[in-house]
Amino acid sequence: MVRFGKRFAPPGSAPGTLSPPEIRRVQEVSVSVIEYGPDQLAEWRSADADEIAAKRAGLPVLWIDVVGLHDVELLRRLGEQFDLHPLALEDVLNTGQRPKMEPYENLIFVVMKLMHSSAGHLESEQISLFLGSGFVLTFQEIPGDVFEPVRQRIRTAQGRIRRMGPDYLTYALLDSLVDHCFPVLEDFGERLEDLGQEVVDDPDRETVGLIHAAKRDLLVLRRATWPQREVVSAFERYESPLVTKEIRIFLRDLYDHTVQVLDMVETYRDLVTGLLDIYLSSVSNRMNEVMKVLTVLASIFIPLTFLAGIYGMNFDPRASRWNMPELDWAYGYPAFWVVTVVIVLVMLLIFKKKKWI
Amino acid sequence: MVRFGKRFAPPGSAPGTLSPPEIRRVQEVSVSVIEYGPDQLAEWRSADADEIAAKRAGLPVLWIDVVGLHDVELLRRLGEQFDLHPLALEDVLNTGQRPKMEPYENLIFVVMKLMHSSAGHLESEQISLFLGSGFVLTFQEIPGDVFEPVRQRIRTAQGRIRRMGPDYLTYALLDSLVDHCFPVLEDFGERLEDLGQEVVDDPDRETVGLIHAAKRDLLVLRRATWPQREVVSAFERYESPLVTKEIRIFLRDLYDHTVQVLDMVETYRDLVTGLLDIYLSSVSNRMNEVMKVLTVLASIFIPLTFLAGIYGMNFDPRASRWNMPELDWAYGYPAFWVVTVVIVLVMLLIFKKKKWI
Amino acid sequence: MVRFGKRFAPPGSAPGTLSPPEIRRVQEVSVSVIEYGPDQLAEWRSADADEIAAKRAGLPVLWIDVVGLHDVELLRRLGEQFDLHPLALEDVLNTGQRPKMEPYENLIFVVMKLMHSSAGHLESEQISLFLGSGFVLTFQEIPGDVFEPVRQRIRTAQGRIRRMGPDYLTYALLDSLVDHCFPVLEDFGERLEDLGQEVVDDPDRETVGLIHAAKRDLLVLRRATWPQREVVSAFERYESPLVTKEIRIFLRDLYDHTVQVLDMVETYRDLVTGLLDIYLSSVSNRMNEVMKVLTVLASIFIPLTFLAGIYGMNFDPRASRWNMPELDWAYGYPAFWVVTVVIVLVMLLIFKKKKWI
Amino acid sequence: MVRFGKRFAPPGSAPGTLSPPEIRRVQEVSVSVIEYGPDQLAEWRSADADEIAAKRAGLPVLWIDVVGLHDVELLRRLGEQFDLHPLALEDVLNTGQRPKMEPYENLIFVVMKLMHSSAGHLESEQISLFLGSGFVLTFQEIPGDVFEPVRQRIRTAQGRIRRMGPDYLTYALLDSLVDHCFPVLEDFGERLEDLGQEVVDDPDRETVGLIHAAKRDLLVLRRATWPQREVVSAFERYESPLVTKEIRIFLRDLYDHTVQVLDMVETYRDLVTGLLDIYLSSVSNRMNEVMKVLTVLASIFIPLTFLAGIYGMNFDPRASRWNMPELDWAYGYPAFWVVTVVIVLVMLLIFKKKKWI
Amino acid sequence: MVRFGKRFAPPGSAPGTLSPPEIRRVQEVSVSVIEYGPDQLAEWRSADADEIAAKRAGLPVLWIDVVGLHDVELLRRLGEQFDLHPLALEDVLNTGQRPKMEPYENLIFVVMKLMHSSAGHLESEQISLFLGSGFVLTFQEIPGDVFEPVRQRIRTAQGRIRRMGPDYLTYALLDSLVDHCFPVLEDFGERLEDLGQEVVDDPDRETVGLIHAAKRDLLVLRRATWPQREVVSAFERYESPLVTKEIRIFLRDLYDHTVQVLDMVETYRDLVTGLLDIYLSSVSNRMNEVMKVLTVLASIFIPLTFLAGIYGMNFDPRASRWNMPELDWAYGYPAFWVVTVVIVLVMLLIFKKKKWI
Repeated sequence: MVRFGKRFAPPGSAPGTLSPPEIRRVQEVSVSVIEYGPDQLAEWRSADADEIAAKRAGLPVLWIDVVGLHDVELLRRLGEQFDLHPLALEDVLNTGQRPKMEPYENLIFVVMKLMHSSAGHLESEQISLFLGSGFVLTFQEIPGDVFEPVRQRIRTAQGRIRRMGPDYLTYALLDSLVDHCFPVLEDFGERLEDLGQEVVDDPDRETVGLIHAAKRDLLVLRRATWPQREVVSAFERYESPLVTKEIRIFLRDLYDHTVQVLDMVETYRDLVTGLLDIYLSSVSNRMNEVMKVLTVLASIFIPLTFLAGIYGMNFDPRASRWNMPELDWAYGYPAFWVVTVVIVLVMLLIFKKKKWI
Repeated sequence: MVRFGKRFAPPGSAPGTLSPPEIRRVQEVSVSVIEYGPDQLAEWRSADADEIAAKRAGLPVLWIDVVGLHDVELLRRLGEQFDLHPLALEDVLNTGQRPKMEPYENLIFVVMKLMHSSAGHLESEQISLFLGSGFVLTFQEIPGDVFEPVRQRIRTAQGRIRRMGPDYLTYALLDSLVDHCFPVLEDFGERLEDLGQEVVDDPDRETVGLIHAAKRDLLVLRRATWPQREVVSAFERYESPLVTKEIRIFLRDLYDHTVQVLDMVETYRDLVTGLLDIYLSSVSNRMNEVMKVLTVLASIFIPLTFLAGIYGMNFDPRASRWNMPELDWAYGYPAFWVVTVVIVLVMLLIFKKKKWI
Repeated sequence: MVRFGKRFAPPGSAPGTLSPPEIRRVQEVSVSVIEYGPDQLAEWRSADADEIAAKRAGLPVLWIDVVGLHDVELLRRLGEQFDLHPLALEDVLNTGQRPKMEPYENLIFVVMKLMHSSAGHLESEQISLFLGSGFVLTFQEIPGDVFEPVRQRIRTAQGRIRRMGPDYLTYALLDSLVDHCFPVLEDFGERLEDLGQEVVDDPDRETVGLIHAAKRDLLVLRRATWPQREVVSAFERYESPLVTKEIRIFLRDLYDHTVQVLDMVETYRDLVTGLLDIYLSSVSNRMNEVMKVLTVLASIFIPLTFLAGIYGMNFDPRASRWNMPELDWAYGYPAFWVVTVVIVLVMLLIFKKKKWI
Repeated sequence: MVRFGKRFAPPGSAPGTLSPPEIRRVQEVSVSVIEYGPDQLAEWRSADADEIAAKRAGLPVLWIDVVGLHDVELLRRLGEQFDLHPLALEDVLNTGQRPKMEPYENLIFVVMKLMHSSAGHLESEQISLFLGSGFVLTFQEIPGDVFEPVRQRIRTAQGRIRRMGPDYLTYALLDSLVDHCFPVLEDFGERLEDLGQEVVDDPDRETVGLIHAAKRDLLVLRRATWPQREVVSAFERYESPLVTKEIRIFLRDLYDHTVQVLDMVETYRDLVTGLLDIYLSSVSNRMNEVMKVLTVLASIFIPLTFLAGIYGMNFDPRASRWNMPELDWAYGYPAFWVVTVVIVLVMLLIFKKKKWI
Repeated sequence: MVRFGKRFAPPGSAPGTLSPPEIRRVQEVSVSVIEYGPDQLAEWRSADADEIAAKRAGLPVLWIDVVGLHDVELLRRLGEQFDLHPLALEDVLNTGQRPKMEPYENLIFVVMKLMHSSAGHLESEQISLFLGSGFVLTFQEIPGDVFEPVRQRIRTAQGRIRRMGPDYLTYALLDSLVDHCFPVLEDFGERLEDLGQEVVDDPDRETVGLIHAAKRDLLVLRRATWPQREVVSAFERYESPLVTKEIRIFLRDLYDHTVQVLDMVETYRDLVTGLLDIYLSSVSNRMNEVMKVLTVLASIFIPLTFLAGIYGMNFDPRASRWNMPELDWAYGYPAFWVVTVVIVLVMLLIFKKKKWI
């Protein structure tokens, strides 16, 4: 079942009220900060908003990556320092958001979903991102290495990332989030393939459960991936000094990736529906087979049993010569067997012709 | 069944004719009035339109909350005092409206639906709201505490509500209505989960009824929640001095909430459809199992009964030595049992191989 | 089956050719004329176009209501007098039109459908209406009292109808047509509810026929009600001196009603689909039950019959002491019964555990 | 199966290559020419493009109707004389086109589909039409009388056709094509009705084939009729001196007809889907009935056979007085019959109560 | 199962990173170059980007056709020479793209899919195309003759291709790609037809697998053909000196072809869905038939066996004259046979009437 966990504020509470998420998905909140320009790089860890502010070196791009959401105080202080809107911060904490892109006066707020496949089913994690003038803030629910390749590219000054601004960093982060869908989808595709094999080879009662688990996972996937396309498209079309012109061609490429993801999700949907059809027709076929075995056996032996029943009757042969004279025939019993064998053969021939056996 | 109760005026009657709803859902009409500004607050109860007018202190925001709709005279007087259009008042009384937002010359009329889950199924209540210059009027069918948190925030001057105008109050009320959907959906989700368990563990004839009851409730939910999105969106885009600029960012957040509600409703729809599929395949599987038991038992005993029938035949052994010599064999009977046991074992082996037992 | 009756002109015939409808749905064409202004009222009946023209008093609003369509000559004369386009007149006669609103140079032509529920199924009647400067012409196929409340409001000067022009009369007529859907839908809802009860309690072969009759009626309803919304919307948005500004707020209210009608129709559609699902699962369940009875009975008695068959065998106890010694035991027969009862009890226990009995 | 016949040019061939259709649907290409003005009329037949050019009298409207497509040379000559684009001519020959309207610089090219019902299933014929300044060219695959009524109206100067230009002629031809759908649909509706009767009364294995044949025919119908609406709509909205203002009101009427056709096609689609549902539930019901007969008979006779089997056992009454004393009772046999009848009656009562008999 | 093969770059890698596709679908990368103007033609083969640059003769149109994608170095050099954007080159290598048309500053990048039907199922190949000022670059995954007719038309100066620019060449190539769908669809249609025959004549367990294989192939087809329409439409509407005005009429014709392809794909989808319905109803019908055989046989012989059982009972006729007097009747046994035959005939008559035999 798809549960939504109590990930919404109580109805009627004042907007912008920050309350920590009900379930702590990480033990310790950790914050990693990275500052860079074309030729410089500074990197440190700290969970104290004031320390972060103090340590800032003033390089062109500042990226603060917060993992874990239950330190509400840290969020509030970051919100004050970077002028984040309370409604946006509330959305960071209420992790039931759909992927969305919301422009605020001086920054852009983006929510994305990261898919994890754990223990055979899919889970989604909310990634929130603020793009402001000179800084990028990201919030993750649980630690993971999805942003690590980007950090590595910054460290090694690989590609153009060090030469460009926070909008390119934002693009790079979104790109790694969207591209992370591909291996998840690949895994899911293999799972469907196995299921497809099982449905054909050996479907049992649990198969239908597995099909429906796949269907539910696909629902989660669709909820997470459909709005991504709009997010990227809104980003690309958004007129603001925060999004420079050079970045748009990269966003168009990213948009293409989101569409490819959707394409695969939709294809999987059709495949799962097809699996259920095969399963049901397979169950029907098995029932048919069972019925045929019963019918063939019953059709052969029921008449024979009647025949045997006849010669078990006690009509008195002495009463008249019409009463069961067969019983006294010298070859009555062999004749009975001949008739029996003939009946069986005829029956088998009929069923053969009907392709039942 | 989804009934619509006679909640429409007789066809052909003059537009704007006010007739009380057929079913009184509350014993006594009650009116609670609250007036406030940044530093002042007045609150009283009265069911007399003239008394309300007389008691008005002239504070920036006046909120009149009417619970119960059958006092048509009170509505008419309020309509005159606040210049409400008769067609809008008619819609307040005909509670079969869809959620909608209708701008009139000097005020905005909003209809929303509040979901109640009672006795295992969902019911909707119509909430009507007028936003005018300096006042908000709300009409509820039955008493409930959905607006209580807002009233509390006004009383305790919590958040910005006391510093802002009637448009913010309207936002706060709509927000509490929309957010009220989340616990209702949460309950519904738990109900679906229980049903999902029942379908897999122990489906019986009533299960299909429960699935369809859930489906019908979902229909009610969709009818109530789909138009909410358009209501909030129309509100946000509406150009009027009644909706100040500061409010729009809150309305955008509210819009997000309506979309999240729809998302959950759609997910539940897919889940309910899936439940029916599981149920049907489960019924098929059970039939299959029944058939197998019958087939296995019949396949084993029908041939054996034939065998026993043979040796119950009365062919006369004295007529010839071909007639049933087995009966006179010293070990005929034990041989019969050996044959019987062999047949049973062979049958069991065959069925084992077919995975029927 | 939904038949369309030969309600179209022969292909290739010149446009604007007037031919009477194939089926006369009324014996006698009757025309009722009503003329009114704020203070005056004239009303008479006549089936002669010239007489109507002669009797005209020149009051602000003239409403001619024609019941029955087979007097082609009358239509042609009215068409000449009021300058109606031949293509519009042709549409009046070819009653297979969809609801539509067509502006002509100096008048507006509206086609609506009126639903009748007769003998347990729904039928639609075409209502055509011309709104011109100072006059309204309506054409009905069969007599009915759907316009009577409007006529009554004119006679008694109830509401604003006498003070307003032909556009308000048009609105009032359309309003009574749309609102007439509500009782029809209410009836249909009750029929669905009865059917829902029958499907659960006692489904038989006719039930599926009834469900499909309901489905077909719903098709008729949808065909009649979907385009109504566009008609009213086109009317509201149409810029012409024929539609005054005061009328638009009423048309918006009427639009809401058409949307409510559609909402109910769509809900019923979902319900009917659900009924079929319940019916099919109910049939499956019954089959299951039948199979269980057979299986339980057969499983109990087939082994017992085999047992009885054994002791009916004629192995000669005198041939050896191995041959059926049980037959000679003193308590052989009671022992047989004990074994029988034990087998029955064990079987019943097994089936009890499987929840088959 | 819906085959598309090799009605496309080989891939990679130069655009505008004219190759005759693979299947000759007519023996001889025939060309009928008609020229007319308000007071004049000339009509002749010729299959030679030069002769046609030579015979032209210069009247306001020239209509050349070509039946049969395999005379590629004739088409090429006509194309040169009337300045038809090679791509359009190619589309005339490749008869797998969808209905479409394509404006060229100095003429309009229209493709329509004409439905024929032959030998119980539907076939479509491509009709191509060029509207130029002063002329109309039509191309049909097979001879038929669908344009005959228009020709007759020209000859007899019936209606306004002689007074108007080639655009009105085009309208008249399109109108006769669209209106030709109505009798085809009417026939189809009757076929569905018969099928509906058969499904309820006496469904057998062929019924499902007939339902699917109807479904396939409906697919052909939809492919032919859906784009018609866009064709007429594009025609109506097309700004060109070729389409005069007077014609637009007629095109609007024609548009209405195309929408009515679609409406019927969609209704039939729903009906056919419904038929399949009834068929399947009917098959289920029959299976149920078969099962009940088997179960009732088996349930009655299996216990009785066991009873008879008991008294066929050979327990020796002489061994003890416990061994089958019933056999020696004076009224043992009548008692057996009494028990038998009682069992039968009880069984019948139970089945009666279960409504199985 | 639809697998996507690892055809995407690792998530988080820098955009524009060129990595060769995982599966080499061709042994050797081959490049064929053709340069032409109205009167001149040069053609050669080379797999070295520098050699190609050196050999260029400067004719109006240069077409470089690369078959095989794993020579990343060649691509990089071509990219530098023709100023291709790294993101576009990355898309050439990641062959999981959807068909798309992307304008870059000085060139247009087009991705199309070519369908191959191999070993009874469909596969798609990615064709990438760059249209720049004076040149066209195409990239194919595997060698094939889909572009051969175009090359032939260039060589033989057939049609207008030599007189026109690289945009016409692009059109000609896209046209041959789209038209290549028709024979593939034709083959698929024949496969469906065979399947349709098999479903009706002799459906077995493998049939459902074949139906689903067809369904999956159709998914591949849809993914490849749906976006083609948008590609061509975007091309036609794109304002750039790269797309001359003369070309647009050809692109419109090409657009029509893409729509026809979609039309066929959609029709096949409906047909495949229909096949599954026929298959399931066919399985149901067979089950029904099996059940009838069992029921008829059991219904006839079970009562008879009971009858025979009665006269096998050992009630002692000597105990009283009520005990089985039939056994001593002179014609008891013949009477038994008469009763038996009568029962059989009555049963057969009943089943005949029920149309079971």
